[in-house]
Amino acid sequence: MQGTTGTSSQPTGTYPPTDRTVPTRSPERAAYDKELVHAILDEGYVCHLGFVRDGAPVVLPTLYGRVGERLYVHGSTGSRPLRMTGAADPGLPVCLTVTHVDALVLARSAFHHSINYRSVVVHGTAYEVTDPEERRTALDALVEHVVPGRSRDSRPANKKELAATAVIRLDLNEVSAKLRTGGVNDEPEDLSLPHWAGLVPLRKGYDAPVADPALAPGTALPDYLSAG
Amino acid sequence: MQGTTGTSSQPTGTYPPTDRTVPTRSPERAAYDKELVHAILDEGYVCHLGFVRDGAPVVLPTLYGRVGERLYVHGSTGSRPLRMTGAADPGLPVCLTVTHVDALVLARSAFHHSINYRSVVVHGTAYEVTDPEERRTALDALVEHVVPGRSRDSRPANKKELAATAVIRLDLNEVSAKLRTGGVNDEPEDLSLPHWAGLVPLRKGYDAPVADPALAPGTALPDYLSAG
Repeated sequence: MQGTTGTSSQPTGTYPPTDRTVPTRSPERAAYDKELVHAILDEGYVCHLGFVRDGAPVVLPTLYGRVGERLYVHGSTGSRPLRMTGAADPGLPVCLTVTHVDALVLARSAFHHSINYRSVVVHGTAYEVTDPEERRTALDALVEHVVPGRSRDSRPANKKELAATAVIRLDLNEVSAKLRTGGVNDEPEDLSLPHWAGLVPLRKGYDAPVADPALAPGTALPDYLSAG
Repeated sequence: MQGTTGTSSQPTGTYPPTDRTVPTRSPERAAYDKELVHAILDEGYVCHLGFVRDGAPVVLPTLYGRVGERLYVHGSTGSRPLRMTGAADPGLPVCLTVTHVDALVLARSAFHHSINYRSVVVHGTAYEVTDPEERRTALDALVEHVVPGRSRDSRPANKKELAATAVIRLDLNEVSAKLRTGGVNDEPEDLSLPHWAGLVPLRKGYDAPVADPALAPGTALPDYLSAG
């Protein structure tokens, strides 16, 4: 049940670093490898989408999907960022960030406490998608991102639902990953301190599915859920 | 091991809604209750901090801590948002967002697929903290946020570490929570479709702690970790 939505073949190569994607701190944690970036994106459920409204930043969590080198975000045609995208020409500047917290890092020193994480930051311009076929592809990708295999096992959107849904696209051009992995980085002189140090991994995965009470009689749990 | 850093008594009351915190969509999902907002904030490990740089949005994941009605974010004095805060007068406009994904919501229709989530969005201005006592309080809160009880069981920051650390403060004034809870919302005419529908809850909690290989002999796992 990992989110793997990309239908293209394995990507190769890297995203070219830019002024915005080279960190001023801990540059050794930055990565531009496309395969790594895609894997981090595909494992997430919500991204945090940032845009500027009246000169101030706004950061909202939202679902997303990936098709090759394109990300898609959807929402009601009445929602703020999607209205702004449609109204803007040539598009809406956004920053889309996906983060996984993998473990708490407990050091002997307060200063070296940290988190093992993997994140992807995408800078770019979001455009409204109007082509009917691309809209279908995007909406399928959004459902597939949550549960691979699900778009073919559900009723597709009808005309009314499609008309109420805005879709925006963000291309993967200016992209970086940032990761902290590994163990504790205490100062050598602190190693003999009596405080416990180490990693506390966060649990990943799913608890048992809870069926809707109104499920049609005889509807079994599908294979793509029982593997979780 | 839930993150509960607030040392003040139970908050009462609500944050006054503003133009920025009343959603244009699904207003029934918005909440302004302080106790709920604090609980969502305290359960998170990373927030997504948005700011504007050269007219474009930037969204970065970062650790945070809460003390009553104040949030604290820290980082290297060389990091971009913290440099910008120190340089800015009167402060840096930010949007700080914390999101928990609780369950995948699988509907019979593609359109009604969703996520059960709880999020908090804070709009405001971030100020650099220079008062030594408030800096200590903030740094303790950051460690306590990751593991309650930990700040007293680790070596406090020394002068060199304190000098390398910038701390910014964001007051909880313009704040809203947004939640989706409950089950599947399919259209009545879709209930007889043969697709499985229901919730897939995400696992929460911690896997077994992994001790640092260089742990001082005889260092036991502390109580505040074994309860996880």
